[in-house]
Amino acid sequence: MAVTIKHIADKAGVSLATVSRVLNDSGYVKEETRKKVVQAIKELNYTPSAIARSLTKKKTNVVGVVVPDINNPHFGELIKGISKVVDAANLNMILCDTDESTEKELKALQLLREQRIEGIIVSPTSNENDFNSECLNTLENLGIPIVLLDGDVKYSNFSGVFVDNIKGAYEGIMALIKEGHSKIAIITGRINSKPAKDRLIGYKKALAANNIDINEEYIFYGDYKEESGYKLTQEILNMKNRPTAIFTSNNMMTLGCIKALNEHGISIPRDMSIVAFDELKVLNILGMNISFIATPTEEMGRTAMELLLENLKDKEKSHVNRITMHPKLLLKGSEKFKK
Amino acid sequence: MAVTIKHIADKAGVSLATVSRVLNDSGYVKEETRKKVVQAIKELNYTPSAIARSLTKKKTNVVGVVVPDINNPHFGELIKGISKVVDAANLNMILCDTDESTEKELKALQLLREQRIEGIIVSPTSNENDFNSECLNTLENLGIPIVLLDGDVKYSNFSGVFVDNIKGAYEGIMALIKEGHSKIAIITGRINSKPAKDRLIGYKKALAANNIDINEEYIFYGDYKEESGYKLTQEILNMKNRPTAIFTSNNMMTLGCIKALNEHGISIPRDMSIVAFDELKVLNILGMNISFIATPTEEMGRTAMELLLENLKDKEKSHVNRITMHPKLLLKGSEKFKK
Repeated sequence: MAVTIKHIADKAGVSLATVSRVLNDSGYVKEETRKKVVQAIKELNYTPSAIARSLTKKKTNVVGVVVPDINNPHFGELIKGISKVVDAANLNMILCDTDESTEKELKALQLLREQRIEGIIVSPTSNENDFNSECLNTLENLGIPIVLLDGDVKYSNFSGVFVDNIKGAYEGIMALIKEGHSKIAIITGRINSKPAKDRLIGYKKALAANNIDINEEYIFYGDYKEESGYKLTQEILNMKNRPTAIFTSNNMMTLGCIKALNEHGISIPRDMSIVAFDELKVLNILGMNISFIATPTEEMGRTAMELLLENLKDKEKSHVNRITMHPKLLLKGSEKFKK
Repeated sequence: MAVTIKHIADKAGVSLATVSRVLNDSGYVKEETRKKVVQAIKELNYTPSAIARSLTKKKTNVVGVVVPDINNPHFGELIKGISKVVDAANLNMILCDTDESTEKELKALQLLREQRIEGIIVSPTSNENDFNSECLNTLENLGIPIVLLDGDVKYSNFSGVFVDNIKGAYEGIMALIKEGHSKIAIITGRINSKPAKDRLIGYKKALAANNIDINEEYIFYGDYKEESGYKLTQEILNMKNRPTAIFTSNNMMTLGCIKALNEHGISIPRDMSIVAFDELKVLNILGMNISFIATPTEEMGRTAMELLLENLKDKEKSHVNRITMHPKLLLKGSEKFKK
């Protein structure tokens, strides 16, 4: 049952008019009385947002979007897709950035719970084997439509738009093998995230399909950040049995990888071949031909927002809708093997 | 004077208890009576947020940040700086992107007014000669601390962190002139924005200081977006009396400019010299030596948030504090003149 100001008045033993004066901070109220009212508000857990929501049933037309890293152009593209639908539907959007931190993700979700929003799109930071299931609980208790984007949440059954990461990585590695590579390193993403795990599965699957032994020394565990791509590529270059190709699991690590290769005067693909997960449009702009496994990011963002919109329009009827999109291999020559 | 539920009760000619029931959507109220109350709420402009704020004086610990383009790494860096202070102070942040549209900026500010936030940092999209002064009015009526970042708002006197755009552009152009250039094109930003205007002033000032005539044909009006840098560079390359150097007024247009030069097989600086406003870290990562006028973006974001924090801590004492930072010229050879 919703807490009303009548409850507060009863609890504090004052009149409705007094509660009203305290709430509105208008007119004279004795300090002692004010404290009683505030105490009653606290005890009854009478939150401003609860009032605000029940107040008018007025639609706020605001949706919340939570992403792990707004400095990553991949999420910039997803947000661009979301924005287009948000604008067309004449809604507003507020963004939260979790900076790839599960702790901040929880804070962001709690924050959005307090704000007056109607639905939420989450590109999860924490998703697998995070034994604190607080994020999941928070999501499930939001009481508003939720759409996942790009990453799944274990033990959940929310609607969402995903990408077939296993297939994408598989095809990228297959292209390298086709060129004659067998010594292929992978730089993984944050391995507790499902996309990172799936991309590693795709890598292993392609090697296995070609009877190439999986060399654990060629698996380098990154964290999706540029710095890890940079450092791990340096490690790769220092290996005795150096790989002839590198598969990078996201765009930021690809940048780090290229930086390390540049600094060592290693030419792509003459001295090292590369296939990268996630397109980096800036490389195209600058005329650098890196082969990508490109995900339809803007389309994914658009689709996620369309799903959310459907759920907002008809909350009763809303059913779980999970859409998996297919990445596209864009070969530009960096996968080549110079014998 | 704040509107209270007493005012609503008087206006609607009903009791406080009735208003309370309508506000809380609890208990029985005749439909006709409900309509009267809702009408009174509307006429008195009694917004949910007004209640929410006055309700408890409970701190929400949320700050709002409004930027023109989150897909632009310049704003990504500013946000990174803001985030660091937000995290250290254990606050939360919600972001709004205006997509370089003054219309969306107004919507964003109105949205934040409805949300429960304690302070706001705005990197303005609309600022000069926008005859609709709605954004300014909205800002001034927010009733919470405001800090401007990166761009100023005419006729306003908010605290803020700015950059000396005139000086930055002046020094960039001086470096080109020193190399022997006199035919220097500029690609401006959205010219109704103060930074764009100031960068153009710096350009003209440097030419004047060297007794070089200002050739209006060398002034190309862009809009901060990559596409305009690309198109305008193509125009520059098609000129009969082609300039020997290009000054680009922001990072995204620099990307577009480089793209056009690449496509025409124009080498930097052999065939064309460049000095660019705003650092593009990705170019450094990729080993491309473009000379920049670098603004201390992360520091600017940090400082803006620190200013806001001061104002939040002591609203009474808060005074207007306007800080101007100095950009730094980073010469990497792209400004050179090959005779």
